[in-house]
Parts: sequence; structure tokens; C-alpha cells
Amino acid sequence: MNFTHSDKIIELQRRLTAFMEAHVYPNEHAFHDEVETNRVHGDPWQPTRVIEALKLKARAEGLWNLFLPDSGHGAGLSNLEYAPLCEIMGRSELAPEVFNCNAPDTGNMEVLARYGTPDQQERWLKPLLAGEIRSGFAMTEPDVASSDATNIRASIVRDGDDYVIDGRKWWTSGAGDPRCKILIFMGRSNPDAARHAQQSMILVPVDTAGVTIERTLSVFGYDHAPHGHAEISFDKVRVPASNILLGEGRGFEIAQGRLGPGRIHHCMRLIGLAERALELMCKRANERVAFGRRIAEQSVTLERIAESRIVIDQARLLVLNAAYMMDSVGNRGARQQIAMIKVAVPAMACQVIDWAIQLHGAAGVSSDFPLAAAYAHARTLKLADGPDEVHRNQIGQLELARHSLARH
Amino acid sequence: MNFTHSDKIIELQRRLTAFMEAHVYPNEHAFHDEVETNRVHGDPWQPTRVIEALKLKARAEGLWNLFLPDSGHGAGLSNLEYAPLCEIMGRSELAPEVFNCNAPDTGNMEVLARYGTPDQQERWLKPLLAGEIRSGFAMTEPDVASSDATNIRASIVRDGDDYVIDGRKWWTSGAGDPRCKILIFMGRSNPDAARHAQQSMILVPVDTAGVTIERTLSVFGYDHAPHGHAEISFDKVRVPASNILLGEGRGFEIAQGRLGPGRIHHCMRLIGLAERALELMCKRANERVAFGRRIAEQSVTLERIAESRIVIDQARLLVLNAAYMMDSVGNRGARQQIAMIKVAVPAMACQVIDWAIQLHGAAGVSSDFPLAAAYAHARTLKLADGPDEVHRNQIGQLELARHSLARH
Amino acid sequence: MNFTHSDKIIELQRRLTAFMEAHVYPNEHAFHDEVETNRVHGDPWQPTRVIEALKLKARAEGLWNLFLPDSGHGAGLSNLEYAPLCEIMGRSELAPEVFNCNAPDTGNMEVLARYGTPDQQERWLKPLLAGEIRSGFAMTEPDVASSDATNIRASIVRDGDDYVIDGRKWWTSGAGDPRCKILIFMGRSNPDAARHAQQSMILVPVDTAGVTIERTLSVFGYDHAPHGHAEISFDKVRVPASNILLGEGRGFEIAQGRLGPGRIHHCMRLIGLAERALELMCKRANERVAFGRRIAEQSVTLERIAESRIVIDQARLLVLNAAYMMDSVGNRGARQQIAMIKVAVPAMACQVIDWAIQLHGAAGVSSDFPLAAAYAHARTLKLADGPDEVHRNQIGQLELARHSLARH
Amino acid sequence: MNFTHSDKIIELQRRLTAFMEAHVYPNEHAFHDEVETNRVHGDPWQPTRVIEALKLKARAEGLWNLFLPDSGHGAGLSNLEYAPLCEIMGRSELAPEVFNCNAPDTGNMEVLARYGTPDQQERWLKPLLAGEIRSGFAMTEPDVASSDATNIRASIVRDGDDYVIDGRKWWTSGAGDPRCKILIFMGRSNPDAARHAQQSMILVPVDTAGVTIERTLSVFGYDHAPHGHAEISFDKVRVPASNILLGEGRGFEIAQGRLGPGRIHHCMRLIGLAERALELMCKRANERVAFGRRIAEQSVTLERIAESRIVIDQARLLVLNAAYMMDSVGNRGARQQIAMIKVAVPAMACQVIDWAIQLHGAAGVSSDFPLAAAYAHARTLKLADGPDEVHRNQIGQLELARHSLARH
Repeated sequence: MNFTHSDKIIELQRRLTAFMEAHVYPNEHAFHDEVETNRVHGDPWQPTRVIEALKLKARAEGLWNLFLPDSGHGAGLSNLEYAPLCEIMGRSELAPEVFNCNAPDTGNMEVLARYGTPDQQERWLKPLLAGEIRSGFAMTEPDVASSDATNIRASIVRDGDDYVIDGRKWWTSGAGDPRCKILIFMGRSNPDAARHAQQSMILVPVDTAGVTIERTLSVFGYDHAPHGHAEISFDKVRVPASNILLGEGRGFEIAQGRLGPGRIHHCMRLIGLAERALELMCKRANERVAFGRRIAEQSVTLERIAESRIVIDQARLLVLNAAYMMDSVGNRGARQQIAMIKVAVPAMACQVIDWAIQLHGAAGVSSDFPLAAAYAHARTLKLADGPDEVHRNQIGQLELARHSLARH
Repeated sequence: MNFTHSDKIIELQRRLTAFMEAHVYPNEHAFHDEVETNRVHGDPWQPTRVIEALKLKARAEGLWNLFLPDSGHGAGLSNLEYAPLCEIMGRSELAPEVFNCNAPDTGNMEVLARYGTPDQQERWLKPLLAGEIRSGFAMTEPDVASSDATNIRASIVRDGDDYVIDGRKWWTSGAGDPRCKILIFMGRSNPDAARHAQQSMILVPVDTAGVTIERTLSVFGYDHAPHGHAEISFDKVRVPASNILLGEGRGFEIAQGRLGPGRIHHCMRLIGLAERALELMCKRANERVAFGRRIAEQSVTLERIAESRIVIDQARLLVLNAAYMMDSVGNRGARQQIAMIKVAVPAMACQVIDWAIQLHGAAGVSSDFPLAAAYAHARTLKLADGPDEVHRNQIGQLELARHSLARH
Repeated sequence: MNFTHSDKIIELQRRLTAFMEAHVYPNEHAFHDEVETNRVHGDPWQPTRVIEALKLKARAEGLWNLFLPDSGHGAGLSNLEYAPLCEIMGRSELAPEVFNCNAPDTGNMEVLARYGTPDQQERWLKPLLAGEIRSGFAMTEPDVASSDATNIRASIVRDGDDYVIDGRKWWTSGAGDPRCKILIFMGRSNPDAARHAQQSMILVPVDTAGVTIERTLSVFGYDHAPHGHAEISFDKVRVPASNILLGEGRGFEIAQGRLGPGRIHHCMRLIGLAERALELMCKRANERVAFGRRIAEQSVTLERIAESRIVIDQARLLVLNAAYMMDSVGNRGARQQIAMIKVAVPAMACQVIDWAIQLHGAAGVSSDFPLAAAYAHARTLKLADGPDEVHRNQIGQLELARHSLARH
Repeated sequence: MNFTHSDKIIELQRRLTAFMEAHVYPNEHAFHDEVETNRVHGDPWQPTRVIEALKLKARAEGLWNLFLPDSGHGAGLSNLEYAPLCEIMGRSELAPEVFNCNAPDTGNMEVLARYGTPDQQERWLKPLLAGEIRSGFAMTEPDVASSDATNIRASIVRDGDDYVIDGRKWWTSGAGDPRCKILIFMGRSNPDAARHAQQSMILVPVDTAGVTIERTLSVFGYDHAPHGHAEISFDKVRVPASNILLGEGRGFEIAQGRLGPGRIHHCMRLIGLAERALELMCKRANERVAFGRRIAEQSVTLERIAESRIVIDQARLLVLNAAYMMDSVGNRGARQQIAMIKVAVPAMACQVIDWAIQLHGAAGVSSDFPLAAAYAHARTLKLADGPDEVHRNQIGQLELARHSLARH
């Protein structure tokens, strides 16, 4: 359990923080203003100039693709090395895309880097790494509890040199953006195979005939334009057989490899988001006066700030430990640790952000502060990539198995 | 403590429930669709045909102005009688306006009915009771902790036969609607008077020169169009001296009389909202299957449903008790009971709704169900009309005073 | 839902409170001192002079057997009438026995009053009503989860004119006391009958051959001498067939009738216990100074006092409602309400008492205040008469059944 | 943040665990039986043969005084090295004394090792290190909030070559044991000095004239015989001036140095205690059947086991981090981290142990399992060495100070 950051990482932390302060935080309101202007003009679903300009700057400074452990394509950082950097990005809604480290593109790039053929990589990974296109991950379905992957009903059927795809997916995040060109699609290709060999993943270009973005879904009133969470229908969609990833029936295997890093990245970012909320809470408490005293002097305020500091630090250590385990024993060996942070960190973030909202009064639920949006995001992560209940079951079963021989 | 409902109330409950099932629930999506269509066409801030049609129906059926205890103008129901009816209306975001029982108009109508001159009543109360216009309550200010009313900075200065008003208010709910014609404005008129005699309330027509709706504020991601929560600037706004309510320096007195009923109405509605969430939770649990079993069979599901039933019933009883106390000993005598429900009920509703969201998976945070919007609303009520912290302080101080003589 | 107390009940409240203040609270330390003296002298398991003297006084004042709804034998009060009186008794560990209203004797007396033959009543009910003997309820078994009554293994076998009883019971409260003369024993008499007709209840005098009090169990560190919670073995215990209660195979029926009142009595008392804790908390907060201020002025203190007031009032209302339902629709019709208070009230009491302990500092966990003992008692009631988990399951299932047809 | 354990520590973990399994766990009931036998024979306040025999074994195996960072007298381990060993000892109530690592002797030995004169060390430290005598720390007073050390009223007055000591102390743990020979006493020696220079610490042999053990205090019914928590009066107690520690007016300085390690040792042990509770919970869940299923299969069980695993791991990491900070930047530099674990770890332990109790049914609150005693101990640590409220205030103030310059 050596969580020490190397000088290289400390230097990256310093540079990222400087970039955030110089370029990201000051542009948060400008970003939202631009989206609102686009919305009033009839189309919020277009990339913003604010983000595009910041991407150029970040890439020029080498703060780009830090998430990718594969040193051939990305920064080659371990999970433990990436954690403190990802945390910094998590402090602002804008930052992950600015540094080309935003979900679901990161997970999709990892899949392509690890399992893609050279052709697939050339066509899709390259422009994704360059931040020129975006991508979606079409797994969750509206009609079934998708946390139980055996419920997935969409079909992938071989037909000559093609696969024909049918089904309906939702919560395909990022698919609201017109730059979203490629989907990684999960469906049932081998219904008669063993339970975990029935699913495949396949690449589906968004502009293929039969792919229809039906609508985007909102999250607590936020449509997250221009990113967006899409419901997409696939009606006799035909793609070349070469679009399959890794091979028929290997969808589960890819999903397992993809979801671990995806989950820990979410958690890393939530640590940063909670730190930001605590920072805002402290600042407000120091400034605001009610009933003749700064609210920082009230013991209820001190109590919430203290508890926030405690739960954030605990959560960060748990994330670092999960990262350390993933680096040491692999994603499968670290599955209990990954499930644990997936449960613990969103709950922590919701709590801290909620306290911060309360301390800001009505301003806290408005868009004048990033808190309400932060809450909506953190709350959603109790559901995304599997609801807490599924993870808790897994953690509990692993624990029971370990203690089934315990003597005292 | 006799909470028994009379036959008259039971009959009204039956009729309201029938109306809700026939007309309100089936139109929820239609309402949101109409607002979204208006938004796409460039102006979400206009009354909807859906609501206007429902208002006609409700008024025709006599389900109208049930909130008003003054039997000259309204239904003449006590708080205890209104509670179960208001609860039913709280089950749908649309319902309060449909029955002309929505905040802040209810509170404003009460003020006008109780304190308004015949002229003021003729001009403003009459069209409000008819549902023809809407109104706002301009009390909270952006720059100060308004829960401490001595912080209020807006000024009301006598100048000949007029008052001149300056200041900035926000969270003036309902002022987004073009039918909002009149504001009840609170400001400091007598800065040198005793602490609770410095403030006055005055009627300010929205179209008076110097009144500018600067923007509307969102709650989480909802702008609540066409209702809206406005930030309004008042720049040398001049109104006739006869617009003053009750008399100079009596703003606090009116506020106290207005806030008690306002708070309990919010709580009554939240009971209904929580019941709705529990109902949705049960329905979903009965239908949804994961890992081979209906989720209704999981003991975690049963536990949350059981806890929901418990906390809702407790909260309802506490609200009925507060209503009973208000009817028996008056709003001032019941101030601890009112503060208690103001703390307990939003917390209860947030908890139940959050469990319902979790059980719905990602659908729960979307607009496919009314749950995320319900959560945003319930969460806001931990802040609106005074944050929990202020109410808890008051409850605690009243309790300590009572026990300062306790012997055991 | 009419919870109004009649003048008769208000008068009884007044008299009980006066008795508590004059005689019970001032003797709490004396009671514990007498038990400790007995312990040092080698036998804590004997009745105390303190309690015996108080019983005489209480009986003389007619504050006796108030629990018994049967007006032939007791006070003839309804559950709703008894609730506020039982609450007062719950404020002190001593009080229930002083007024002859302590568990498990109350439940046992109810069983005898309702189901006993005239002979059984003459022999056992009469001295119990007089407070001359005590009794035990031998249901729970050490080796099985007794909350699932079908698990019960003790046997009752007919042999000529006798029944022969074998088995092991524990948590037979009150059986530490030498005055405990009679046990109501539950066991399996008809193993081949339908699931709920296999069990019988039978009267077993403690001095019957084969009955051995093996030990008493402690609750946290309290042995609750001289009351005590016994583990008892039954080895070929032979009692006359006439000792059977109500008839073979009717044990479940009796248990159902007995447990409802038993549970609500526990809850009524816990309300009083929580009130006492809050009272102590307020008194201490008003007196104690730390860091230059009375702790009553700290907002964390106010917050806990406010929350205590809220949760106690909610719990009391829920108990009154359950009492009202039991009186109106019977114990079976009120089974969801009874299960709800059984879950809600001990949790409430534990929370309030725990806050009171914290506010008392280290003194709070000692015996200088009644708080630690109160906590141990309240905590145990999350388990006694069925653990929370079982009650929550039942509440949840009843709720799901109700909503299985819900439409909105 | 390198928390890696060296091979030396891993080997010590292995040996400690082996010792616990071979000698400690199997003797837990024997220890309690011996105390109870002593009690029945009239004196529970005598050392047990069980512990004395185990001490010999432990010392012979070199598992002795591992707590002492001073390598001249003890094992010379850093806080980070000691943490995993102390955790193992925390798993059993007996273990700390068996390994001569029990509070308050550890803290007292550290004070003597660090600040004692050679004479003081020869007379008191040597027999303490040998486990031949015990010691007490007389700081807390019954009449004042001792968490605010300026409240301390006991006096230490120079008189010729002596100091004369007057006052009353309580919660002097360990002073019930007849082997307790020496007290470290804190009192006010210089009332006119600056606020933090008024207190001194001085050595007071228990057999000095005027020292009276008035009584021992119980903790949730446990008297913790033969260890015991004493209330002690000091009436004109005269000790030689050479008994002063470090010098007049340096009591605060010593207290600060003593309390940091004391607090973290408590937290380390609580991690172990919580692990033990989780282990028992898992074992029971795997074995017990209710309503036709192992309770391990209920999702509420899995949920609690999962949450237990999460909160224990978080707490352990937070403790390791505090230990690492103490080793790196000293106790003063790590004061926020120490305060954080002092708040977080007892709360965690109470939660986990409470769940374990619930899962054991009524057996959980009895002495058949170590859970109820464990709860009482963990609960007390929310108060001992300063109540949570004081620590939270300190954490909050340090956090606010840090953020007073925050920009985002």
C-alpha cells in the first residue's frame, strides 16, 4: 500500500491545477451561457466554442489523454498515478472534456486500444485520441434491469459478411453531440451459448441506416447539452462483420475490462467534486452573516465541515487503495475494492454536496453555483454502471465467502 | 387531538381523488409536452392550454379555493379540514394550480383577504380568486441571509402621496408567468423603529415603471416554466400610499400571519408527494425482475417500503397535529409545531423520493417519472421559508425554555 | 382518529405524575443501592424493600393494574386511554412494577384474564393482580430463530391426564425473581397439524420437578436483578392436562393476541423514557459550561434537542394511532400499525437517549444517570418480540399488497 | 503516503495472530468466569490468574511492549508499524493487557519514558514495563467539562520541598486494580500564569495519605473489574517536589504529547474490534436459518455486511494515514488527522458492532458473545479523551482556516 505520488505526478498536479485556475473555472459561466444562447437560437446540441478553445490549449500544454494506461497511445499512467490528476479534473463539469478525459470516450478509447484491430484503431481510436470525434456506449436498455446483463435483449445476428442489429438502448451518454460518430454496441449474438458467452460488442457508426436518436433524457432537469444522454433505436442496422470487437460472445469479457476503470474514474472525479463543494462551503461560511454571527462560527457549520473533511479523506484513501489493487492484482482481483468505491464515493459526494447546498441557502439549488448540478451528477452515479444494490450484494457475498471459515 | 375527518371532508377527498385520476394524472405528460413545445417555439413563459382547461373543469365542480379559511371568499375550511385535501393536490405538480390552491397565490390571497382594504380586495383579490391573474411575494434578497428578516435591505420611502421603492429581490416564485400582475413587496420603511417594526408590506403592480424581471432562477435543472422563480430589481418604483398593507411598520406582523399557513400547506402537499413516490415504488417493485426475482421480494426493498410507510405516517400525523394546534391556539401558539413540520416533512419526503428514484434505476432521475422533479421540489423546501437550521434553533430554544424548570 | 384524552385520563395522568415525583424518582438511587447491597451480601435475586413499599402506596392510591382492558379484573381502559398513563410509567425503570403494570406479567395476566379457566384464574391471575407473585413467558429458544415461530422445538406431549414438557427456553424475563411462580410455556404439541396449529400454550409452575433455572442472561452489563432474564431447561416436566390454555394447537392464536398489546406497551413506555432523556438533556445543556458558553447556546445542541422533540412527538402520535386502530379494528386489523411502532419507537428512543448520553459526557455512560440503562433497554427492544427485520418485512408486504393495484 | 508493512511487521502480525488464536480467544470466557467467581466470593477487584498466565507466555514470546516507540525501553516501532499490531490486539478485550499494551499504562509509560527523570523511570517505568504494577491517569474531573482543560480545578501547591494536592478526579481507568500503584495527576499549579501554562503533571503514589478511591464507575452496566474506572478524592495529599513531571506549568505540553498516541491506539484497537464483529456477523449469517433461508442470503444482510466492509476499510486507511502523518510531521502537525480518526473510528465501530448485535438476535446483547461489551467500549470512545463535538470543532476550524484564501 504505497500511495506516494512520484515527482512526475506532483508536477502534473501542479500544472493541471494551474490550468484549472487560469482557464477552466473562469470559463464555467461562459460555457453555460453559450449553451443557453445556442438553446435560445434553437439548437443547444452543438459543440461550444468555449470548450473547443480550451481543448486546444490543454493539448498544447500536454495535458491530454492522461487517462490512457497504454503508453503507446496515451500517458501510460497507472491507476494510482492517474487518480490525483483525475480528481483535479473532477472539480469542474467542463474539465474532463477539456483534457480529453471524459466518459464515455475514455472507456471506449480503452476498449479500442486494448481490443481493437489496427483498422478499427485507425478509423476510430485515432480521431478520438485527437478529440475530433466523440463516441457512445450503447449497453443499457429501457425495458429491463440492465445491471443483470443476462437481461439484455438487443440482438446481433450474423448475415453473410454483415451483422444485423436490432434493439433499443438508452442512457447512451454523449450521443446528443453531433460529433458523436461511433457507438460501441452490446447485444446478444449467441443466445444458445453459456450464460456469459451470449453477448458480443460491435462497432456501429452513428450514421448507419436504421440508427435513430429518438430523444435525449434529462437528469434532474438538466439535459446536459450538448453532451446528452440518448435513447436510440436500432432497426435492422447492418454493419460489416469486421466491426465485431474481439470476437463473438466476448462481450462480457470486454464489459468487465471496461467497467472497472470506468467506475474508478467516476469515483476519482467525485472526490474532486466533493472537495470543490467543501471549498465553496468554507468560503461561504467565512463570508455570510446571520443573526449577528458569521455562519462559520456556528457549531453546526463546524460539524458539517468536519464531517465533510473526514468523509472526503476516507473516500480518497479508499479510491487510492482500489487503484493500487487494480495496478497490483488486476481488475478482477480488485473487484471487491472497485465495488466498494462505487458504493461509498457517490454516497459521500451526495452528502457533502447536499451540505454545501444547504449552507448556500436558495442560491445552492440554483445555477449560480455548481452545486445543484454536482448533486444531480453524483446522485446519478448511485445508479450508473450498476445500482448500489448490485454492488453491495457482490461485496457482501465476497465477504461472506472469506469468513465462511472464520473461527473467532 | 381529534383528527377525525367529517363526512364533508371525506366527500371532498373522494371527489378530489376522482378528479385527479380522471383529469390530472393523465395530463401530466401533456402539460410538460406543451411547455417543451412552447420552449422550442421560443417562449416557455406562457400559460398552458392544459392547465387552463383543467381549471375550468375544477371550478365547475366546485373544487376551487379550498385553501381559504375565510368563508366569505373561500371554502371556509379549518387547517385540519384542509390538510387531507391539500395532501391529495400535492400528489401532482399540476394539481395545486388546477384547483387554484397554489403557492404563492394562496398566501397572497390570505393576506389580501385578512388585511386588504375593500379597494385592494376588489382590484387584486377578486381576480386571484377567479384564477385570472397570478401574484408574487417579493421578500427574499440575494445579498443577505433573509431568514433573519432584520437583514432585509430593500427600502420603502414615503414621498408625498406615494411610496418609492428600491431594492433587489429574488426567488419571487410565479413571477415568470405573464399573468403575474401583482407583487406583495416587503421592505424597510421605518429604519429607526424598534427591530420588529421597521418593515412594511406594500402592493406593487408588476407593470409599474422601475420594476424589472431580471431573470428566472432554476432549481436543480428545472426552470419551472411557466411559473418561474424571478430575480426582480426595483428602481425608484413609485406606488400610491394606499397600496400599503395594514399600515407602516406592520410587515413582520403580516409575515408571521402569512408564513404559518404557507409552511403547513407545503408540508401537506409533501405528504401527498411522498405517498405518490411510495406508490410508484411499490408498483415498480411488483413489476421489475432482476437476477431472477421480482425486486419486491428482496428484503432491502421491503425494508425501504416499510420505512417509507412509517415515516410518511409519522409525518402526516405531525402535520395533522400542527393543523389542529393552529386551529386551537393560533399560529403563534403553534409556532413550535409549525417549525417542527417544516424541518421534518421535507426531510421525510426527500428520503422517500430518493428511495423511489433508486428503485427506478436510471429512469428515476429522468423525466419519464415525476420523481426527480419531486425530489428537487422537496429538497428546496429545506431552504424555502427559512432553512432548517433556523427552525431547529427555534424549536430547540422553545424546548429548553420549557425544561429550564424540569426536575427529573 | 380522535386522540383526545377524557377528563378521567387527564386526572389519572395528573395523579400518576404526582406519584412519580413524590415517590418514584426520589427512590431510583435507593433501589439500585439496595440491589447492590444485596449483591454484596451474596444474593441480588431478592425483592427489594423499596419497590414493595412503593407498591403498597400505589395500590392504596388506586394506581394499580391500569393496563388491564378487562374491567372485571382491571381498570378497563382502552389502549388509547392507557397510552398516556403507560408513557408516564415508562419514565422510570422502577415504575411499571410499582403500579403492577410491568412486562411480562401484564401480558400473562391478559392471557389468563382472556383465556384462563376460572380455576386457572383463581390460582394464578388473582395473586398476579394483587402483586403477590410474578410470572414468566417461556417462548424464545436459544438454538433457533424464534421470530419464526415454526422454528420452535420444545415439545408438549400428552400422557394420560398429564402433559410432559421438554425443551430449553431463554430470555424468560422476570424468572430471576424468587416470587416468579408460574410460567406460560409455548411448545409444539401437534407436530403433524397445519403450520399454525402445531403449537400450544400451557401453564407450568416454576417449582415443578424438571424445571431448572440454568442461569440469568445479562443485557449489555446489566443483569437486571432481581427481575432477571432466565435460561430455563425443562426435562420431562409433568403438569396436569388442565393446565393447557384454550386448547391444544391454539398457541399461535394466543401468541397473536398477547403480542400486540405487549408490543404497544413497550412502545408507550419508550416514549416516556425518551421524554425523560430529553428532559435530562435540556437540564444539562442549561447548566453546563464549556469553552466559555452554556452548551445550550451551541447550535449543535439546539439541533439535537429540536430533532429529539420532533422524533418523540412523531413516535407518540404513531403509537396513539396504533392504539386507536387496535381499539377500533382489533389487533389483527391493526397489525401493520403495531409492526410500525415496534420498528419506529425503539429506534427513536435509542437515538434520543444516545444524544442525551453524549451531552452528559462520560457521566452519561455511568450509573449516575439513568441514560445508559435506558439505552440498553431501548436497544434490546429492537430485538425483543421479534427483530426489526421481521416487522419490516411484514410492513413492506402489506404495503405492496395494497399498492399492487395502484394506478398512479 | 507509503503504508506498506515491512517484513518485520508482517512477521509480527503473523505471530500475534497465532498467539491470539492459540491463547487469547480460547480464554475469553475463562477470564469472565474467573472475575465472576471472584465477585461471588466477595471481591472482583483482584488480578486474574488467566491474564497473569497469558502475560508470561506473551512476554516469553517477545510479544511485549510493542507500543513503545522508544527503542531503549520498548519495541521502537513507528506509529505506522504499530498500527496493524495494535489492531490485532484490539480484537479481544483481554489482549492489550496480555501484551502489556493496554491503556492507560501505555500512555503513562510513554510520559515516563519521554519526560521522566532517571529516578522516576527506575521507580515507576521499570515495573510498568515489566507488567508488575499498573498506573492511572488522573485528569478528568466530575464537576466541569474537562474537555476544556482550562476548566480543571484540582490544585497543586508548592509547600517547602513538597507539593500539596487537592481535588477530585474521576474516570481514572485502571485504578480499580490493587496493582495500580502510581497516578499521573494533572492540576493547576500556577493559576496566574498564561492560559496554557497554569497546569502541571505530578506523580502521586496511590498509597499516599489523603488519596481515597471513592468508588468505581460502570459503563453500560459493566464495572470492568478488575480494571475499573475510579473516582478518587485527593485531600491535602503531600508528595515530594521531585515528583513533578518536566517542570511546573508544563502539564499542557505533556498532555498534548500524551493524548495523540493515546487516541490513535484506541482507534487502531477499534478497527480490530470492528473486524471481529464483522467476522462474527458473517459466521452467524452463514449458519442461521429463518423463514426457510440462511440469513446470509437476505439482501439486507448482504447490505450490512457490505457497508461494514466499506466503513472498516475506510477507517483503517484513515488511521494508517494519521499514523503516517504523526511519524512524518509530528503529533502537532498531524492534529487534524488525529482529531478526524477520533471522531470517525468510534462511530464506525459502534455502527458495525450494532449491526452485528442485531444479526445475533437477543444473544447479541448478552455476554454469550463479546458484542455488547464491545459496543459499550466503542460508544465510550465517542466521549473519552474529548467528546466528538470538541474534535469536530477543531477539525472544522482548521479546515476553514485553510480555505479562507480559497478561490474556487
